[in-house]
Amino acid sequence: MTTTPTSLAGRAAGLDADAPLGHVRERFLLPQGVVYLDGNSLGPLPAAVPPVLEDVLHRQWGTGLIRSWNDHGWWDAPARVGDRVGRLIGAAPGQTLAGDSTSVQLYNALSAAAALRPDRSLLVTDPDHFPTDRYLADAVASRLGLGVRRIRPADLPGHLAAEGDRVAVVAYSPVDYRTGELHDMAALTRAAQRAGALVLWDLCHAAGALPVRLDALGVDFAVGCGYKFLSGGPGAPAFVYVARRHHADWRPPMTGWNGHADPFGLHEEYLPAPGVGRGRIGTPPVLSLLCLEAALSVFDDVDLDQVRAGSLSLTGFFLHCTEVLLDGLGFEPVTPAEPERRGSQVSLRHPHAFGLARALEARGVIGDMRAPDLLRFGVNALFTTHQDVLTAVTCLREITATGAYDPSAHGAGGVT
Amino acid sequence: MTTTPTSLAGRAAGLDADAPLGHVRERFLLPQGVVYLDGNSLGPLPAAVPPVLEDVLHRQWGTGLIRSWNDHGWWDAPARVGDRVGRLIGAAPGQTLAGDSTSVQLYNALSAAAALRPDRSLLVTDPDHFPTDRYLADAVASRLGLGVRRIRPADLPGHLAAEGDRVAVVAYSPVDYRTGELHDMAALTRAAQRAGALVLWDLCHAAGALPVRLDALGVDFAVGCGYKFLSGGPGAPAFVYVARRHHADWRPPMTGWNGHADPFGLHEEYLPAPGVGRGRIGTPPVLSLLCLEAALSVFDDVDLDQVRAGSLSLTGFFLHCTEVLLDGLGFEPVTPAEPERRGSQVSLRHPHAFGLARALEARGVIGDMRAPDLLRFGVNALFTTHQDVLTAVTCLREITATGAYDPSAHGAGGVT
Repeated sequence: MTTTPTSLAGRAAGLDADAPLGHVRERFLLPQGVVYLDGNSLGPLPAAVPPVLEDVLHRQWGTGLIRSWNDHGWWDAPARVGDRVGRLIGAAPGQTLAGDSTSVQLYNALSAAAALRPDRSLLVTDPDHFPTDRYLADAVASRLGLGVRRIRPADLPGHLAAEGDRVAVVAYSPVDYRTGELHDMAALTRAAQRAGALVLWDLCHAAGALPVRLDALGVDFAVGCGYKFLSGGPGAPAFVYVARRHHADWRPPMTGWNGHADPFGLHEEYLPAPGVGRGRIGTPPVLSLLCLEAALSVFDDVDLDQVRAGSLSLTGFFLHCTEVLLDGLGFEPVTPAEPERRGSQVSLRHPHAFGLARALEARGVIGDMRAPDLLRFGVNALFTTHQDVLTAVTCLREITATGAYDPSAHGAGGVT
Repeated sequence: MTTTPTSLAGRAAGLDADAPLGHVRERFLLPQGVVYLDGNSLGPLPAAVPPVLEDVLHRQWGTGLIRSWNDHGWWDAPARVGDRVGRLIGAAPGQTLAGDSTSVQLYNALSAAAALRPDRSLLVTDPDHFPTDRYLADAVASRLGLGVRRIRPADLPGHLAAEGDRVAVVAYSPVDYRTGELHDMAALTRAAQRAGALVLWDLCHAAGALPVRLDALGVDFAVGCGYKFLSGGPGAPAFVYVARRHHADWRPPMTGWNGHADPFGLHEEYLPAPGVGRGRIGTPPVLSLLCLEAALSVFDDVDLDQVRAGSLSLTGFFLHCTEVLLDGLGFEPVTPAEPERRGSQVSLRHPHAFGLARALEARGVIGDMRAPDLLRFGVNALFTTHQDVLTAVTCLREITATGAYDPSAHGAGGVT
C-alpha cells in the first residue's frame, strides 16, 4: 500500500488518466482554483445550460410569448423531463414527472401511497432520514390518522416480523445523507412488499450518482431532487415516479388544474389525468424545467454503471488518503469501507468539523458539514478527479496538523 | 363620440402620447410586428431579466456554487421576493412569501385558513372561479370533512344571511378570469368577516394590474401567480400572503424542512418557523425566484393607481372601438362597461371565438380564448398602447367582416 504523499499523487494521476468518464468533466463550467466536493448538495453548472436558457429567454419567452406553451413544448415539459430523469433511475417512459419541490412531491406521493393501503395504520420512516421526509411522514400520518414508526433500515425485517401487517408504506432513502451509507434497495423493497406494504424511495442522494433500477426492483413510488447529482441548478424541479400498476388507482391529494384529464375544458369537477399525469399540480416552472432538461444532457452517452464505478474509485481513494494522511489527527470515517455499502460521499467525524470546513473553504476546498461533528465530501464521477480528492485530504491534513482553523467555531452547516 | 377609424386612430395616438406610463413600455423586450394582448396569461420578457439570469448562472451558480445560498441571498429569496410582491398588493413586509405554484400555495393556505375556524363546516367558492381554485376547495373540504358552497360573489350577502355562521372560509378572486368582471374586494371581505368567516383572495388576475390593499382591507389570506401581470416568466413562482394576526396560529399542512424554525438544526420534530416563514415548503426554486425578482424591478417607480388608470383607459377604449368597429358582426362584450366593475381585460362573446383567435394570431394579434365562445384580450398599462388596442379591433373587424377565418374551428384555448 502506498503511504507517502508522493506515491498518492502518482496514484491519483494514474487513476484519473484511466478514468473512463474523464472526458465528461469538461461538460461542466467549474471555477478555477476550487476543489468542489459539494455536488451532492448543489451540482455545478453544466456548459449546456447557459445557451439553452438564453434561447428560452429570448426566442421562446421573449418572441414566442404565450405561443411557446405549444410551439416549444412547454406544456409537455414535466413529462418529457420526467422521462429523461426516468432513464437514470430505471423507469420506463410514462412513469416519471418533473416539477415542484421534493417536499411537495413527497407529500403528494406519500399521501397517495398510504391511501392505497386503507386497511393499514402505520407509516415507516428512517429515524436518520432527511428532516423533510420525517416531518412530512408525520404530517401525512396525522392527516390520515396513521401512526409513524421510525425504524432504521437494518431493523426493518425485525419490525416487519412484529407488525408488518399494519404497515401501509415504508419510506426510505437508499443513501444516508449524513453518513453516506448505502442501504440495500432490493432487499428492503422485497421485505416491505412481502409484508404487503408499499415502498417509497427518496432518491435525492442516489439519482444520477448510481444505477437505480426502479422498474426492475418493482418499487411503488419514488421522489427525488434535480439539483444534486443531476446538476439542474439551485432549487431545480424535483421528480416523482409512480409505478405503472398504480396509475389507475393513485389519488394525489393536490388536485391542481394541471393534473386534470382535460385541463383546458374548465370542467366543474376534477377528473384525474391518466397515469402519472395526475401528479401535475399547478402551472409547471418552465424556466427551471428547461434548465434541468439542458443539464441532463450531460448524461446523454453516460452509463450509470460507469458512474458508479468511478464514484467507488473516488470514495475508495478518499478513504485510503484519509487512512494515510489523517492518521492520528482525530478523524473517524463514518462512511462504510465496504464498497457495496457506500453512496457517493465520504463523511468524517471530527469534533471541530465546523471550523475545519470553514478553513477548507478558505483554501478553495468546498465540502460541507452536518451538525454537530460531520465533515461531508461528495464526489461526482462526472467531474470529480482523484487529484481533487488528494488535494482535499492533503489540505485537511495541513489545516489540522498546523491548527490553522478555529476550533471554537460552530454552526449548523449549509443547504441539504 | 368619434365613430370613424380615422378619428379612432387620432384618439389612440393622443391617449398614448398622454399616457403617464408610456415610458415604461421600453422596459419590456416586445417582439416586432406583434400586438400582445395576452399578458394576463403570460407577461412578456422584461429587459432586466436576461442580464440578471446571466449573472445568476455564471457568477452565482457557476462560480459561487453552494456558497451562494448565503453569499448571494438565495436562502432569503422567498421572503425578499415575497416582500417585493407585497408592495404591489398592499402588504407590509413580512407577510408575503414567493415560491411554489399557485395551486400548491392555495392548498396550503386554504387548508390552514379552514383549520383556523374548526367549529365551522363550509368553504365558499365561486362557481365561476378558475378550475384549480374549485378543485382544490373540493380537495381541502373533503380532507377536512367540510362542505363546499359555490356561491357567486353577488349572491354572497344573501348566502351569508342564510348560513353565514357555518362558513369557515370564503375563497374568491377579485377578477373573473373569463369575463374580466371586477368584484368589490372591500365589500366582500367585510361581508365574509362580519359573518365570522376568513377570506382568501386569489390575486392571479389582480396583482400588478390594479391596486390591491390587503392590509388596509384586513384580508386574511391571499395567493397569486408570478407570470401574468408580474411578468416573472413562464411558470414563475407564486406567492402567498398571511395577515400578521394569523402568524402565530396558522398551520400549513405541508411541513417541509424549509418551513422549520431551525432548518439546519436537523431536529427530530417539526417546529414551525415564525410568521409567514412556515409557508416555505421545500428548497426554493432559486433561478425562477431571481428571474421574478428581476422582472419586478419594472414596477420600481410605478404607482399602481397610474397602472389602474392606464388599464381603464385601455379597456374603455377597447370597448369603445368594439362598439364603433364591430357593430353588427355578432360580438357581445361580456366585460362590464362600468369602470369600477372592470378588471384589466376585455372579453367578447362570439360563436366562432376559436377560429377568430387563430386568424388574429396569424396576423400577429395575440389574445386568447376560453371555451366555448369567449375571446379574451388582456391589457397591461405597462406596455399595452391604445394603438395596440385599435390594431387588434380593426384586425378583428376585417377578419370577421370578410370571413377570413375558419368558422368550424373549435378548441379549448390555451394556458390559463
